[in-house]
Amino acid sequence: MIALDGETRLHVIIGDPIAQVKSPGGVTRSFVARGRNAAMLPVHVPASDFDAFVRGAGTARNLDGLTITVPHKFAAARHCATLTDRARLLGAVNVMRRNPDRSWHGDMLDGAGMVAAIRAAGGDPAGRDALLVGAGGAGTAIAQALLQAGVVSLALHDSDATRVEALLARLRPVAGGARLRALPAAEPAGCTLVVNATPSGMRPEDPIPVPASCLRADMFVADVITAPEVTPLIAAARALGCGTSTGLDMFAAQVELIAEFLLGGA
Amino acid sequence: MIALDGETRLHVIIGDPIAQVKSPGGVTRSFVARGRNAAMLPVHVPASDFDAFVRGAGTARNLDGLTITVPHKFAAARHCATLTDRARLLGAVNVMRRNPDRSWHGDMLDGAGMVAAIRAAGGDPAGRDALLVGAGGAGTAIAQALLQAGVVSLALHDSDATRVEALLARLRPVAGGARLRALPAAEPAGCTLVVNATPSGMRPEDPIPVPASCLRADMFVADVITAPEVTPLIAAARALGCGTSTGLDMFAAQVELIAEFLLGGA
Repeated sequence: MIALDGETRLHVIIGDPIAQVKSPGGVTRSFVARGRNAAMLPVHVPASDFDAFVRGAGTARNLDGLTITVPHKFAAARHCATLTDRARLLGAVNVMRRNPDRSWHGDMLDGAGMVAAIRAAGGDPAGRDALLVGAGGAGTAIAQALLQAGVVSLALHDSDATRVEALLARLRPVAGGARLRALPAAEPAGCTLVVNATPSGMRPEDPIPVPASCLRADMFVADVITAPEVTPLIAAARALGCGTSTGLDMFAAQVELIAEFLLGGA
Repeated sequence: MIALDGETRLHVIIGDPIAQVKSPGGVTRSFVARGRNAAMLPVHVPASDFDAFVRGAGTARNLDGLTITVPHKFAAARHCATLTDRARLLGAVNVMRRNPDRSWHGDMLDGAGMVAAIRAAGGDPAGRDALLVGAGGAGTAIAQALLQAGVVSLALHDSDATRVEALLARLRPVAGGARLRALPAAEPAGCTLVVNATPSGMRPEDPIPVPASCLRADMFVADVITAPEVTPLIAAARALGCGTSTGLDMFAAQVELIAEFLLGGA
């Protein structure tokens, strides 16, 4: 799909784990479709080595862009000299490109990708009461994007309650009229939009992030997980007749956003 | 030619400049032909950043191999925990793969690639008097390989005479019966094998590494430069009817040696 040569411009996606990511194929296809000799490669870097990797690999003159996945989205923001407004608000990035002086400019596209996937599947967030499980990198971005997309209330649950409080404090200035609250358990009573932004569902032994017994047919259920495409949560929602969007739907919506951002640099 | 995904294993070729290298395409094709999901990418790193790049990028768990080109072949050897005998003798490497503990194991294949290219073009070094111009990374490896291939004498020239003396001192223990000498000018009188191992010939304004007036039809002339394929030296030799081998011939001979080495690791 790409004929690598000495002039190929490099982009990498950094995560731990990394084998499940689809961006190397998807974003590289988008680069090639746009006529660029550029590729996205997967790099498997644990959290303890993230800073060293970015500093060291960043010395390569033909490394033009970074895409960031779990667990590095917060750490990556600290490597950016400049940030978009939403990335600054969230304190997290999932894409970084070069400024003219070779420093990094960061944005966070996870939220925009999730909202686009929900809309494409008929679950427009506007006017809905939403439950979001997971206040990590992806969850933080999705919370901001759901508010921007017009949810009337947003309930947050995370196994780490302090993470929820920190996110709520960050969201209040941009909540507009939407009601924000922390939930001690992932129970979607009264909600019509349920979003999983935790990694729970990647492994067969993971607990379901929202109890299947709490789902109802009038809920739209969205998941960030790409492998497996149909998580136990998505399967339970579909069994009830809920509208759903998967991590692959979110990924497909994000690929073009990512390629556009990465190629938009100096 | 390769469908990149999250499980793709990475190899990089590091140089300054880098746009001229052919290994990303050639070695990746060889990986794919061997049934591997692995790719070689070009990385452009100046000498001042080489150590930082290797240390930082080396933290990536799916980075399995490094190929090293100008000007990093000596510096790279210092990053290797283990070396082949020839790499230790030469103090330089052009390929590095992981040991079981993730440290680096280095070898130097430039010389073997050059000798294979010369043989394939009918210029077997055995029994010849050779002139080698350039005592840098590639030249050092080629000198060792020419001795191993049975030249009866080896004359060395480099614009930096101290580099020649250092290389001669390193070669004496492995010269066997071959005569070694330093030449103050690149004049191939008495030689029937002439090898350029300098970058002179990459740019139109470069001086020719061996004066065309000194070439004779009974000489075999080899060059390390891949772009342009036909350097002024090779063109002058062909005009006289000399046998020749180009940097692309050496590259083609090296690709399989490199792929075999890189895939032979833990």
